[in-house]
Amino acid sequence: MVGYYENKDGLLARLRRIEGQVRGIQRMVEEDAYCIDILTQITAITGASNKVAVSLLEDHLRHCVAESLAEGTDAGAKVNEAALAVQRLLRA
Amino acid sequence: MVGYYENKDGLLARLRRIEGQVRGIQRMVEEDAYCIDILTQITAITGASNKVAVSLLEDHLRHCVAESLAEGTDAGAKVNEAALAVQRLLRA
Amino acid sequence: MVGYYENKDGLLARLRRIEGQVRGIQRMVEEDAYCIDILTQITAITGASNKVAVSLLEDHLRHCVAESLAEGTDAGAKVNEAALAVQRLLRA
Amino acid sequence: MVGYYENKDGLLARLRRIEGQVRGIQRMVEEDAYCIDILTQITAITGASNKVAVSLLEDHLRHCVAESLAEGTDAGAKVNEAALAVQRLLRA
Repeated sequence: MVGYYENKDGLLARLRRIEGQVRGIQRMVEEDAYCIDILTQITAITGASNKVAVSLLEDHLRHCVAESLAEGTDAGAKVNEAALAVQRLLRA
Repeated sequence: MVGYYENKDGLLARLRRIEGQVRGIQRMVEEDAYCIDILTQITAITGASNKVAVSLLEDHLRHCVAESLAEGTDAGAKVNEAALAVQRLLRA
Repeated sequence: MVGYYENKDGLLARLRRIEGQVRGIQRMVEEDAYCIDILTQITAITGASNKVAVSLLEDHLRHCVAESLAEGTDAGAKVNEAALAVQRLLRA
Repeated sequence: MVGYYENKDGLLARLRRIEGQVRGIQRMVEEDAYCIDILTQITAITGASNKVAVSLLEDHLRHCVAESLAEGTDAGAKVNEAALAVQRLLRA
């Protein structure tokens, strides 16, 4: 069972909305929209993507990491893996 | 003329690639991919989006801001607007 | 016991190094260093700060969150709190 | 003349405040403050650092880049350099 199984529909809906935003930016470029307006929309994409990431991470901690801690299997590896995922998101 | 007119095709190609990445994440979710693998792909989306933003900003500075500085029209406002766009990208 | 008790000295050493970097930037400003060189050093500060944050988060998950999961006390609240901390770091 | 010469005092004041924040975090660690509270303070450091960066970048565009565009010397190189600085700030 994946960590996000309870939020799967919500997660897909958010990803479809991000896909729609990316297509919206393509239309803006095709119609020669002003650079700054496009930059604002790109900010919206990275913001929405990071929100999805935080939500996924929370599900992951609540289910996958909690499970491995409860079972005593690989809990250290799971925690390390989650920290590395945050490191990549922060590009740290 | 928009700042990115010389790079319009490249810009659209990059945005289509990002759209494809977002759809790829949707498939991963539908197929119950591992949370951490999805987080890695989201990191790729925000990275690619920020790269597009930097490229757009550079085009904007090179053309729109340079033009307003050359014409002496609203150059201060243009610089301020560009700085605000960076501020939003950095969420500062 | 705080999550970082095993890494306390290392953590303090990293924070002192960041403090030194911030003072280094002050000297650069006093000596009229080039804007772009200062920006590069600010990037180093945010990078080092985010690295410290990831390390603290990992310690927190490994000790505090693991403990509350083991004891069955407030584990959900701890996970939520950690996710909110990541959200703030990402400004999502 | 550096781009930030008009804001030099304000810039130094902000950097001293960031230095104070970093020292405050060191005290928190010495006194075994709660991990999450420290993470919140680190978020404040990266936020304040990015705000300083945006302000410096704006000064740089307004003075150094504008000057090179006016003089027609190296304007392209200056724009590229500024874009690279933003790229590093965004870690893109």
